Amino acid sequence: MKTIITNVIVVTMDVQRNVYTEGYVKIEGTKITEVGPAGSLKDTKEELERTGWEIRDGQRGILMPGMINTHCHLGMIPFRGLGDDCKDRLRVFLLPMEQKAMDRDMAALSSRYAICELLLCGVTTVMDMYYFEESVAAVMDQTGIRGIAGQTVMDEGGCDAPDADTALGKARELIEAYKHHPRISGCAAPHATNTCSPQSLKKAWEMDRRNHVPFTLHAAEMDYELTWLAKTFGCTPIEYLDRTGVLDSHTAAAHGIHLTDGDISLLKQKGSGISHCIGSNAKAAKGVAPVLKLLKEGVPVGLGTDGPASGNTLDLFTQMRLCAGFQKNESRDRSAMPAKDIVSMATCQGARVLGLDKKTGSIEPGKEADMVLVETDSLNMFPVYDPYSALVYSAGASNVRDVYVAGTRLVWDKKLVFEDPLSIRKELADRMKQSAFGEIEELHG
Amino acid sequence: MKTIITNVIVVTMDVQRNVYTEGYVKIEGTKITEVGPAGSLKDTKEELERTGWEIRDGQRGILMPGMINTHCHLGMIPFRGLGDDCKDRLRVFLLPMEQKAMDRDMAALSSRYAICELLLCGVTTVMDMYYFEESVAAVMDQTGIRGIAGQTVMDEGGCDAPDADTALGKARELIEAYKHHPRISGCAAPHATNTCSPQSLKKAWEMDRRNHVPFTLHAAEMDYELTWLAKTFGCTPIEYLDRTGVLDSHTAAAHGIHLTDGDISLLKQKGSGISHCIGSNAKAAKGVAPVLKLLKEGVPVGLGTDGPASGNTLDLFTQMRLCAGFQKNESRDRSAMPAKDIVSMATCQGARVLGLDKKTGSIEPGKEADMVLVETDSLNMFPVYDPYSALVYSAGASNVRDVYVAGTRLVWDKKLVFEDPLSIRKELADRMKQSAFGEIEELHG
Ligand SMILES: [Zn+2]
Ligand SMILES: [Zn+2]
Repeated sequence: MKTIITNVIVVTMDVQRNVYTEGYVKIEGTKITEVGPAGSLKDTKEELERTGWEIRDGQRGILMPGMINTHCHLGMIPFRGLGDDCKDRLRVFLLPMEQKAMDRDMAALSSRYAICELLLCGVTTVMDMYYFEESVAAVMDQTGIRGIAGQTVMDEGGCDAPDADTALGKARELIEAYKHHPRISGCAAPHATNTCSPQSLKKAWEMDRRNHVPFTLHAAEMDYELTWLAKTFGCTPIEYLDRTGVLDSHTAAAHGIHLTDGDISLLKQKGSGISHCIGSNAKAAKGVAPVLKLLKEGVPVGLGTDGPASGNTLDLFTQMRLCAGFQKNESRDRSAMPAKDIVSMATCQGARVLGLDKKTGSIEPGKEADMVLVETDSLNMFPVYDPYSALVYSAGASNVRDVYVAGTRLVWDKKLVFEDPLSIRKELADRMKQSAFGEIEELHG
Repeated sequence: MKTIITNVIVVTMDVQRNVYTEGYVKIEGTKITEVGPAGSLKDTKEELERTGWEIRDGQRGILMPGMINTHCHLGMIPFRGLGDDCKDRLRVFLLPMEQKAMDRDMAALSSRYAICELLLCGVTTVMDMYYFEESVAAVMDQTGIRGIAGQTVMDEGGCDAPDADTALGKARELIEAYKHHPRISGCAAPHATNTCSPQSLKKAWEMDRRNHVPFTLHAAEMDYELTWLAKTFGCTPIEYLDRTGVLDSHTAAAHGIHLTDGDISLLKQKGSGISHCIGSNAKAAKGVAPVLKLLKEGVPVGLGTDGPASGNTLDLFTQMRLCAGFQKNESRDRSAMPAKDIVSMATCQGARVLGLDKKTGSIEPGKEADMVLVETDSLNMFPVYDPYSALVYSAGASNVRDVYVAGTRLVWDKKLVFEDPLSIRKELADRMKQSAFGEIEELHG
């Protein structure tokens, strides 16, 4: 397959942050082979057609790197909107329902649903962390998205494993099974600093490190996490990870809301990354991560939606807008956290956090062709003085027109190529009705 | 015209906050005549058809009151995205361009454009404040939206008047011209507490009060506004409005970011309202209005987008989401500012702020039929356990399917009934190219 996308504003997110106001991109197989201004394209339209190129007219849209959702729980679609404003929601709604109704089929179906939603929103890479991850990885494979399937490890066990060692065994198998897959990998993903013993953390980290996959966990997110670590070990979550010997460039800490200057220095020194989930954090009233400080110190920060139960929407446009608002407001400086830096968090920085920056996160020859075409001809997308600004402040998920992952077109004119969203939705709704979710009184639709 | 909307979740926003999970609504002429659960509908489908009712199957969507954007500057579409992250943007970008390129035609065309965008987003009532408002009111009339055209009054003059008295004269004519219009009214809208003399404020307020239209102005928004009033008069903006004798139930203060407890008591005592523009405020790094306190004291608070130059998007879904995040985060309480209260700000509370609560803001017999049908069959809108929650945390502007104003269907299956968005867009783009906007280097598309 050879495709050329023409008549687009190319936001490359390469190191120089090149933007080609009238640009083109060539895709051959899974890779990007040429990027540049229209003027530098040597072939005429006729030559391209004669030599078998498919030409896609981008209609003056913005072509950006595929977005990278660095923290999600794909299996949790059935929980979306359940007890949103409840004080102790986790214990009142989420954990009991998870125990009652979450199984392999539900997790797989929900993950397929969530991936459809992600692709329609322009997310081409997702880091997942949930249960039954061998099924999630299989769904990632089938749908064509790029992803990392993180097998949750918890000392008290979870939906799919009675204890940490069983979960670690599952993680090992998962990693092994996808070792040579071009788009998918597995990893051991400890649940959090306070729900895994130092031994479990260390085992997971060693496994992930040995296999060059991310070591990701919830960290510096919960008040009780901080209190407990301070009381028990006299340290912060990040210090605790360091003392346990699991803080290095493989570490992608989800949330990282409450960070001291010392924590930030540690993260910098060790090359660890943060997955910033502002939508989830704000809705849960947990505070705002010090993103400006992190970026200033060179700590890679990506964006994450957290699960659909926490952040509800899975698109990064919502996160970009929230991130801008919260960072600017916290610093009382409207020039802080400019749109360009926010787009970088949604793309190339996210790739760095997940250790995928050699493969994805920018539009450059040699990279995998993970790209999103954002229309600019809808009313909300005019005028475009600066494409970064348009992407962060004006655009919404519904402006995503085409999505490519590894050169394959998965969304075309706002429609999924491989799946009918109504049928997957019906399938999930039916499955939920037959489960404990069906007994929730308020369930509509 | 007689229309019945069936098979919908009706979120009435009446005083009891009734929700009909399987509901229907009847529209006759401009008004809502019946609302209730499907079971209470007496007529069969055949009888309805025989007696001339048009039946709209809502396909299990959420039917909510039309949303009310309580603060906007419709004429400013050409400025959207210009210098978004610039520190002194107002003086560097906005004011010079306004002087160079803003005239009657541009304001009218931009307003028509913005109204199309508003309707597609589910906004059925807008409070505008800008220049050439007689043209804006005419456009409101033509497009079918409900609106208040606020003629800006500034002592130093503006695009359409050399001084406050000329602007006041224009406001008087505008008010007079629309006195008996069923959907539109005019008002005198002083620019801000610090850009009008006490005399101008008083004249505008007397005119608005006499004509039962809102007295709206920017207040308690800018740091330099607060500093100057404190230094010159030793008081806060709200105290200043009170001392000047212009704080009463007609007063709708836009922004109201920096409010003391004394200010909140004053607002409560005088029955004045606040237009909360969190998207604009956060992007401009100005701080977060104390909405929870205001609501606790019973001060009416509506939502506003501010102009497209300030908030970029004109939809209230973005504002609802931001409002939830910021209020919860500020109070460190996830149960604070529940979704139901946010929807009320976007609808019935907004109507109260604008003195339109007898006409619009809820779905009740006798009210004008201003309603929005939000689809629930797109991927992002599932599941729906609680419709308020779905509207605030899951929905986006692109989920708006049908929009009615005064019983007239203005958006149908996500398409404007009366206008082709591409043609209005082309018209505005062409007009901009011929003006000083065309000289801005970064202008794309
Ligand atoms: Zn999480
Ligand atoms: Zn304003």
